[in-house]
Amino acid sequence: MVLTLGDIAEELGAELHGDPSIAVTGLGTLKSARPGELSFLANPRYRSWLESTQASAVLCRADQQPFSPVPVLVVKDPHLAYAQISRHFDIAPPVTPGVHPRAVIDSSAIIGAGASIGANVVIEADAEIGPGSVIMANSFIGAGCHIAEGVHIWPNVTIYHGVVIGARTNIHAGSVIGCDGFGFAFSGSGWTKVYQVGTVRIGNDVDIGAGVTIDRGAIDDTVIGAGMIIDNQVHIAHNVQVGEGTAIAAQVGVAGSTSIGRFCVFGGQVGIAGHLQLADQVQVLGKTMVTGSLNKAGTYASGIPADSQDKWRKNAVRFRQLDEMAKRLRALEKRLDDDNSAD
Amino acid sequence: MVLTLGDIAEELGAELHGDPSIAVTGLGTLKSARPGELSFLANPRYRSWLESTQASAVLCRADQQPFSPVPVLVVKDPHLAYAQISRHFDIAPPVTPGVHPRAVIDSSAIIGAGASIGANVVIEADAEIGPGSVIMANSFIGAGCHIAEGVHIWPNVTIYHGVVIGARTNIHAGSVIGCDGFGFAFSGSGWTKVYQVGTVRIGNDVDIGAGVTIDRGAIDDTVIGAGMIIDNQVHIAHNVQVGEGTAIAAQVGVAGSTSIGRFCVFGGQVGIAGHLQLADQVQVLGKTMVTGSLNKAGTYASGIPADSQDKWRKNAVRFRQLDEMAKRLRALEKRLDDDNSAD
Amino acid sequence: MVLTLGDIAEELGAELHGDPSIAVTGLGTLKSARPGELSFLANPRYRSWLESTQASAVLCRADQQPFSPVPVLVVKDPHLAYAQISRHFDIAPPVTPGVHPRAVIDSSAIIGAGASIGANVVIEADAEIGPGSVIMANSFIGAGCHIAEGVHIWPNVTIYHGVVIGARTNIHAGSVIGCDGFGFAFSGSGWTKVYQVGTVRIGNDVDIGAGVTIDRGAIDDTVIGAGMIIDNQVHIAHNVQVGEGTAIAAQVGVAGSTSIGRFCVFGGQVGIAGHLQLADQVQVLGKTMVTGSLNKAGTYASGIPADSQDKWRKNAVRFRQLDEMAKRLRALEKRLDDDNSAD
Repeated sequence: MVLTLGDIAEELGAELHGDPSIAVTGLGTLKSARPGELSFLANPRYRSWLESTQASAVLCRADQQPFSPVPVLVVKDPHLAYAQISRHFDIAPPVTPGVHPRAVIDSSAIIGAGASIGANVVIEADAEIGPGSVIMANSFIGAGCHIAEGVHIWPNVTIYHGVVIGARTNIHAGSVIGCDGFGFAFSGSGWTKVYQVGTVRIGNDVDIGAGVTIDRGAIDDTVIGAGMIIDNQVHIAHNVQVGEGTAIAAQVGVAGSTSIGRFCVFGGQVGIAGHLQLADQVQVLGKTMVTGSLNKAGTYASGIPADSQDKWRKNAVRFRQLDEMAKRLRALEKRLDDDNSAD
Repeated sequence: MVLTLGDIAEELGAELHGDPSIAVTGLGTLKSARPGELSFLANPRYRSWLESTQASAVLCRADQQPFSPVPVLVVKDPHLAYAQISRHFDIAPPVTPGVHPRAVIDSSAIIGAGASIGANVVIEADAEIGPGSVIMANSFIGAGCHIAEGVHIWPNVTIYHGVVIGARTNIHAGSVIGCDGFGFAFSGSGWTKVYQVGTVRIGNDVDIGAGVTIDRGAIDDTVIGAGMIIDNQVHIAHNVQVGEGTAIAAQVGVAGSTSIGRFCVFGGQVGIAGHLQLADQVQVLGKTMVTGSLNKAGTYASGIPADSQDKWRKNAVRFRQLDEMAKRLRALEKRLDDDNSAD
Repeated sequence: MVLTLGDIAEELGAELHGDPSIAVTGLGTLKSARPGELSFLANPRYRSWLESTQASAVLCRADQQPFSPVPVLVVKDPHLAYAQISRHFDIAPPVTPGVHPRAVIDSSAIIGAGASIGANVVIEADAEIGPGSVIMANSFIGAGCHIAEGVHIWPNVTIYHGVVIGARTNIHAGSVIGCDGFGFAFSGSGWTKVYQVGTVRIGNDVDIGAGVTIDRGAIDDTVIGAGMIIDNQVHIAHNVQVGEGTAIAAQVGVAGSTSIGRFCVFGGQVGIAGHLQLADQVQVLGKTMVTGSLNKAGTYASGIPADSQDKWRKNAVRFRQLDEMAKRLRALEKRLDDDNSAD
């Protein structure tokens, strides 16, 4: 792909300081960009890299423009502007429409116009793949799935029977959608399976990473809101409902029947217990344990930051004495109060 | 599937309050059930939903029966009763016995009567698949595996060479059983692999979620007890032994050579260090770090619950001063004791 | 495989106490070894098992030799010596060179001499597989990948386009290398994808477990150093760079753009935030949360060990009062100081 600075300025509505005919053929960081590449400055503390960049042009805010040795496209949000332009330089291989002769597709399945079905893909009875959707090699689409238009499913993905996936949703390799929820009743001598008769419904424009697992509902469906972004190795249990635009970083686990609002943000390795309600715009920092509902927007945390082993060991021992320490502190306060009142 | 309330009462040994000829064609929650569906009340705090349910019948305890506007099947444990009946309404597609023409099966492998082997399944030399077992599309069964009768393996599963799987065990998509344990010896300049010559032995009636990894033993085998239930993204390291009926929730990790008893229950994201002994009926709450053996049945925990970011930040800083605080507290106590004794 | 004690002594440079013609046909633990098997004693606290072993020979240090009832190979590091010998007794099935007729290989791909490509493997345009490399069944190798010689890729692995893998690297089943990093810019109303135009470069002699995900770089590459060992279900985000010989245990997550030194060791379930620098030889104990750079070699931790539920509950409540407790402690100290100065 070749874009001129004029093209980019036009697409972004950016103010161009430089020659509009200069061509950009790739993307680079301020530090590593070579001539021909476009870069961006989002965080002002990297300004020294701006001052020495070899990029052919830089996206930045107006206040940084004077420090650039190269042409500048002035924008309000350089990271967002970079994201918008980055799609022109995608390096994913082009997709060939059509069904690979080595795909295994049930005769009752419906494959939309322009869809691309890779080698060894298996599509079961009555599944429907929307126009322009891409199912890459070695993926499995269960019976009765409904996959809308423009969906991209990478290799080795498993979609269980009856799952519904919205338009333009992207699912990375190795993910599993619609597996059984962890539902069992204890009989006194063992576990009796609760058959999981709900499914998973994923909205439009969702992005799901690699190695993600999303369980089907026990009775009602598990629901993934439109525009959500979900990082690798996230686990979402049965009956969970998540609102539009929520972001979930890697290795987060959400237990069953929890309901999460819109535009929430979860850091990596957060654990969320079951049957909770989380409001819209809740933010939870990495590794936090959420065991109660969070009814107000705001930021929450509970992780303990790393310390040297020696200090940590001493403090961790004291943690187990905390309640006793609190009582001793109270006793001291009382003793001093009593002493004073006795004066 | 259609069952009458009479059928259900008979199967469960339930006391029926209502017309035995009423037909049930599906399952629903108290809140969402439509006419024709069966529901249940397990937790009394949802009684208001019972009072307004549209279900055709409800499973509940005798004390809740008077509050139901619809026919009731009185049982001791409504959740267990629901689990037992739920299998009649399973929505998983029917399985076709036989070997798909696109399966790749070594001529020395043995496929039991009535087994179903899906498209692109690869079964290596000397593997044995028991009668009625189902190996779904794109799964891999290594050489010399012994898979008993009635096993169900979902798509994209990998079973390494020599793994032994008991009857009626269920393994969800993307799981990996029998990969090498994390065994390496440090040579002073790098890591030398310890070849893992044990295998994995999984008991009867085990349920394994999606994206689970269970390592083969270094020398002796990794052992998964009969009737265990294991949720998604659990990791079980080499040489681990787990007893019958133990339940492990999602994203738990068990490090090498740890031995876990029978009927234990682990919450999500628990981490268990290596070379430990955990007794029968140990329960560990979610996100707990287990670094020592737990020799007595009972419930254990160590997670810190979420707080608002402001409060958390202040408390987390204090955590790193805990040992110093404890010493200052002791000093104050001593000072007061000295003052008093000086009086 | 059969080796004599003489063969083993020669390979290891070990001092043999026993008959060099004795044959060893397998490996066993001190406790479980049967005649014909070789065992080892690394940890002196298992000496009682040495004293009763049925093994045909034992690797141990000179000071343990007198306690062995069976022939001994005296070595400095018995675990390392065992690792070196273990490869002779590997039980992985032999690999057949050649391309399986059911592999799907683009005509522009290059397959090295002696490579083994399994059934249903898909290799896209311009990918290159080095001599003697093994790509097992149902794996996917994206366009333009460069896989060096002697690499072993187990089943159901996905390697995205353009990934570079060094010689003799081993990747276990279900892992995903080169999926998109979690890069999105918030537009005010939703998330705009940042196309990930870097790749992943993996060094020589790396060992990667099952269910691992390693993201491609946003612009620059994600780099996995030579000789690294990575356990199951590890997540490594985009732009991360890790130095030679570093070991990462299961379920660790490393967030984006963090740089990790050489010969570090991370315990299971550690979480490392983004944009950090970790020095060489940093060790981090299991479940630790690393939110700041660690500039010095040494051992770090932050996990809280399990306690009984009753004690934990009381202490966890107090954790949320810690800052207040610290202030009350300070107030008491001040009060006593004031009292004393008033005397």
